[in-house]
Amino acid sequence: MTTRRQFFGYAGAAAAGAAATGGAVVALAKDSTTPEPVSRTISPYGEHQAGIARPAPASAELVAFKLATDRAGLGRLMRLWTSDIVALADGRPAPGDTAPELAVPNKSVTVTVGFGPRVFDLTGQKPRGLDDLPVMKHDRLRPAWSGGDLLLMVGADDAVSVVHAVRRLIADAKPFATPLWRQTGFWDSTGANGEPVTGRNLFGQVDGTGNPAFGTPEFDDTVWSTEAGFRGGTTLVVRRIRLNLDTWDELTRSEQERAVGRKLSTGAPLTGTAEHDELDLEARDADGRLVIAQNAHARLSHHSENDGRRIFRKGLNYVHDTGATRESGLIFLSHQADVAGQFLPLLTRLDAVDALNEWTTTIGSAVFALPPGFQPGEWIGQSLLS
Amino acid sequence: MTTRRQFFGYAGAAAAGAAATGGAVVALAKDSTTPEPVSRTISPYGEHQAGIARPAPASAELVAFKLATDRAGLGRLMRLWTSDIVALADGRPAPGDTAPELAVPNKSVTVTVGFGPRVFDLTGQKPRGLDDLPVMKHDRLRPAWSGGDLLLMVGADDAVSVVHAVRRLIADAKPFATPLWRQTGFWDSTGANGEPVTGRNLFGQVDGTGNPAFGTPEFDDTVWSTEAGFRGGTTLVVRRIRLNLDTWDELTRSEQERAVGRKLSTGAPLTGTAEHDELDLEARDADGRLVIAQNAHARLSHHSENDGRRIFRKGLNYVHDTGATRESGLIFLSHQADVAGQFLPLLTRLDAVDALNEWTTTIGSAVFALPPGFQPGEWIGQSLLS
Repeated sequence: MTTRRQFFGYAGAAAAGAAATGGAVVALAKDSTTPEPVSRTISPYGEHQAGIARPAPASAELVAFKLATDRAGLGRLMRLWTSDIVALADGRPAPGDTAPELAVPNKSVTVTVGFGPRVFDLTGQKPRGLDDLPVMKHDRLRPAWSGGDLLLMVGADDAVSVVHAVRRLIADAKPFATPLWRQTGFWDSTGANGEPVTGRNLFGQVDGTGNPAFGTPEFDDTVWSTEAGFRGGTTLVVRRIRLNLDTWDELTRSEQERAVGRKLSTGAPLTGTAEHDELDLEARDADGRLVIAQNAHARLSHHSENDGRRIFRKGLNYVHDTGATRESGLIFLSHQADVAGQFLPLLTRLDAVDALNEWTTTIGSAVFALPPGFQPGEWIGQSLLS
Repeated sequence: MTTRRQFFGYAGAAAAGAAATGGAVVALAKDSTTPEPVSRTISPYGEHQAGIARPAPASAELVAFKLATDRAGLGRLMRLWTSDIVALADGRPAPGDTAPELAVPNKSVTVTVGFGPRVFDLTGQKPRGLDDLPVMKHDRLRPAWSGGDLLLMVGADDAVSVVHAVRRLIADAKPFATPLWRQTGFWDSTGANGEPVTGRNLFGQVDGTGNPAFGTPEFDDTVWSTEAGFRGGTTLVVRRIRLNLDTWDELTRSEQERAVGRKLSTGAPLTGTAEHDELDLEARDADGRLVIAQNAHARLSHHSENDGRRIFRKGLNYVHDTGATRESGLIFLSHQADVAGQFLPLLTRLDAVDALNEWTTTIGSAVFALPPGFQPGEWIGQSLLS
């Protein structure tokens, strides 16, 4: 398997991803010697919007908008965006595309659309628990990175496809909504041999190990809403977290690992040997101290500490340069059916005692409902707006 | 071939790239059914520095530095960087790496080092023609994007590898040099089926068609210096060119094609049908007008208009956000043995009459000598500094 994957790096990773998420349209090998061409096109159709139940993309952009229209205008924008999204996912130019050659098939383009809490003043059907998060003690929120009425989240294998898709979608939003903030990010979820990996943030930590696995009942229960009118939708928390790499780097590796509760090398819990080993939250060392410390990030964010409530989180690394000065960080993305019920208790606990707070500062925060997916002939948000 | 390439997307592109450039270490398939694992590691060693005679990388960063040391200190920095570069190219952590797990093999990491003109005050062996470019009539240069004593140019398949490598190299430069500007860019040089393509800028133009082909005598004559002490080196012009996408988009496609002299669809000259068809600079239409206009970019930048002198140019797309406002552009990179002899006449002519000037503005400019490559045991710049 390793050898095949090494060679079939590209194909193998895509196939594994598709098997995991059920999302990508992939022609699998008929046998080991006569494999078929691999598609990296991700269908925009389905019960859920594309781009959610997948690993973080190599290149991504999130754009939040301020809405400048009424309910009918929002419906028109959603129909317009839906038609754009179908074309872009397919690598075809959307209607009116002024740079049609930048639409290239097979680049794993996904577009996910979200509604901020205030939009539900227009629709009257706000999903349960969807409110702006209260400001946490450690938050240093900047308006420039916070809030928003609409969200576009675009992902692809390459940055050109992302930039092109975002430009098209912003242009079509022009009469209805204006950009409020935009955040670009990147993630590497392939290892040295092209195999799928969890990926690392810019602290070097394996980031996202605790997630429920794609395609499990646990994942579905965590992520998808079952509320009437919003069934198959989910919510997204976007937190822009500045990482202080310089002070983090002053720690020894074992201090870093103690803060996280996991090994830097593999992401394994300090009580285990492999990345996905369960945490032993009771284990103590020879001196009687908890191996995974009371304030370790992995303990505090573990679902057993959160009344069993889970989230599905992804990260996108970001760098933001002002002249020659670089800020580094993580665009933290959390999906859950219910923000107030699943995410807020976790955030509150992390804000209170997480060891990582010393080296991280949240500078942006926003919450969106991501409407259910759509089928051919339908449009995004239809169940909420029609 | 198409079918094999479609399937062997990843491997095929790498192999094609390696065949073209002689750069990558690639194990080719022994026969069509039992291919070997593919390495995407690019050797840092050779007659020339890595990262030059290759297509633009998917992800890249250029960092210019102000030097704050003497000749001996510069030599120490070069020895340090050389050892970093060997490790980074190999996907191993460099000595002192504080995030060693972010060094991942097989990510096509290349690091190229350059010396600005003033550095040769220390060495006394300035390559012929290496001077800061005069300010052109259309230039609107900002100090923030211009000049510099040292250059690092880092490329890789993914942005995490680039960010990691740059951070390491800047950290090791600390006693010797401080960052002056940094520019991040991206390029997509694979098509829908994973096949190598020239790639497009954010105007949607195929960009780089006119280059001499890798591995040809023409390429070697264009790029590599034969000067004593600098043999195997080259020079690099970095121009940050803002593209006004909004006004460009107001043109019809045929107006856009007339400005460039090439078709948007394929990059073929307006007098041809395939991308690499030779330009017919004399051809006229039924009304007797030149098909490739007098001020078309493709005509003005054609080597026949430049006394046969050529350049090897690459582009990196960039986006630069200030709040919700985006600037889009191209980091234009030109390699030539002699800046004053090969590039300056071309630039002067383009500045005077290029039709594209209406939609482009150069806001940064810098010139560097890229010392020859090195072998195990040697270090970058050794022939200039030791």
